[in-house]
Amino acid sequence: MAETLACKDVIYAFDKTHEPVKRVESGTTIEIETYDCFENQVQSADTKIGGIDWERINPATGPIYVEGAQPGDVLKVRIEKLEIGNQGVMATGPDLGVLGHRQEEMASKIIPVEGDHAVFDDKLKIPLNKMIGVIGVAPEGEPVPCGTPGAHGGNMDTTLIAEGATLYFPVFAEGALFALGDFHAAMGDGEIGVSGIEVPGKATVTLEVVKEGALRHPLLENGDGIAFLVSKPTLDEAAKAAVEEMADFLLTRTGLGAADLAMMLSAAGQSQISQIVDPLMTARFFVPKYVLDAYNVTLFE
Amino acid sequence: MAETLACKDVIYAFDKTHEPVKRVESGTTIEIETYDCFENQVQSADTKIGGIDWERINPATGPIYVEGAQPGDVLKVRIEKLEIGNQGVMATGPDLGVLGHRQEEMASKIIPVEGDHAVFDDKLKIPLNKMIGVIGVAPEGEPVPCGTPGAHGGNMDTTLIAEGATLYFPVFAEGALFALGDFHAAMGDGEIGVSGIEVPGKATVTLEVVKEGALRHPLLENGDGIAFLVSKPTLDEAAKAAVEEMADFLLTRTGLGAADLAMMLSAAGQSQISQIVDPLMTARFFVPKYVLDAYNVTLFE
Repeated sequence: MAETLACKDVIYAFDKTHEPVKRVESGTTIEIETYDCFENQVQSADTKIGGIDWERINPATGPIYVEGAQPGDVLKVRIEKLEIGNQGVMATGPDLGVLGHRQEEMASKIIPVEGDHAVFDDKLKIPLNKMIGVIGVAPEGEPVPCGTPGAHGGNMDTTLIAEGATLYFPVFAEGALFALGDFHAAMGDGEIGVSGIEVPGKATVTLEVVKEGALRHPLLENGDGIAFLVSKPTLDEAAKAAVEEMADFLLTRTGLGAADLAMMLSAAGQSQISQIVDPLMTARFFVPKYVLDAYNVTLFE
Repeated sequence: MAETLACKDVIYAFDKTHEPVKRVESGTTIEIETYDCFENQVQSADTKIGGIDWERINPATGPIYVEGAQPGDVLKVRIEKLEIGNQGVMATGPDLGVLGHRQEEMASKIIPVEGDHAVFDDKLKIPLNKMIGVIGVAPEGEPVPCGTPGAHGGNMDTTLIAEGATLYFPVFAEGALFALGDFHAAMGDGEIGVSGIEVPGKATVTLEVVKEGALRHPLLENGDGIAFLVSKPTLDEAAKAAVEEMADFLLTRTGLGAADLAMMLSAAGQSQISQIVDPLMTARFFVPKYVLDAYNVTLFE
């Protein structure tokens, strides 16, 4: 029987001073329920999106204290399973997202989830790519609102954060203080309208403390390869910093010299956009598994 | 028998005052040979990359005058076939690319192409993704060096510019003055080290004038969907401008209102990086074919 955590225990900021709502041993698998990013306040087309309580946005369920996690360690989070509700909601409005200047008023839309698709309207069904928008640990310094991404994770809105992926977070606080929320039934890279298809849900994750790790930014691993997820004030900075993180990570692990490493990453690495609408921009740099296999790269001993 | 153009006729800038080296009717299929981006000056590991003639970089074969093309029209370029040489070269160096500050001297590397792979070293084989780095038409104003991308195309270094893709360019000069070059056997999105696996080659393209079009930036179509390719001084600007182009293009074609369009593009559109190392940054915004099919979108009448 897995551990469980209900969505009544939420945070609106990642904060190292928070009291944990749950304590688990390293290696524990836990089911975590989540509200959608509007804390389930929009249930029908009749709800005025402008009239909801905007203090209750991007709730993350947690925080969970993982026994043994110390600053300087790495928290390994494997996403075993991702279940979502059968009704999603999207929203956009003036000054929200890339096209906010074209919007005259706040707008929202209820989007049913049917089988493997989200029903956008009577013409368009969008294939699901279920993912977690907000996931992370308590940051090093001041609290970070759940709507903002950073080195601690948070609102990275990254399509790769999906079932089967494993995330590695730098630990900044005792117990790591892990939390997650803000699931999307589907979202495009960039999340250009400021929302995905927002859904409540339940994630089954396994939390494990890695003692030999050293990370400055979240690292993601899936069946295709690995990616550093880096958030900065501009997309240019985020994209370049993600490359730097990967270069540092692979320099000793591949044994390549600086020039060969740059050329290899230029030919085989992928610079990608996660989101361009949150308070910081999130980019990622992806390296395929065949590269890791070729050089016998191990992530952590 | 297709028309042909040998690689001896090259330009180093896209320029509306250039004399065309070839004139073709709209609808012509033509085989165009190309040098690699170093104009084939690096043939072995013995060549000192710092010692080559750096005035002869990024040559594009052309320009080709397409009969009937007028400013305000669109030039449709279908890439029927892309053939590459069996030896590639990569280079990087101080101040080149994202990792240039880690390089102490210019470095290059000969990379054999064998079957479907490029042999990077004795451990790593990189799957080919054959593509065209430089492709475009004469720009509206001053000449643009072939190493720089822009509204006219040029050095967009976009992995999607591959066999089977169709590009649509705004026409700025009579005859369009089309040219292409700078093929890559493989390149990752971002091209973070400043070069792909650079190869000479031959492209078979069909050039067609579209009279009813109106474009501000290049549009790409392939079997997966469409993407606007936009180049700007920063990646942030490029990524946002690509979204704006797509929104303008799809607004009337889908019949969606401004809010629904923003939400649809947020859920189903993809903000992607082409390259972050050239004089302007190139981003693209991609919309999948299932969206176009759902709303019966036609690109041009």
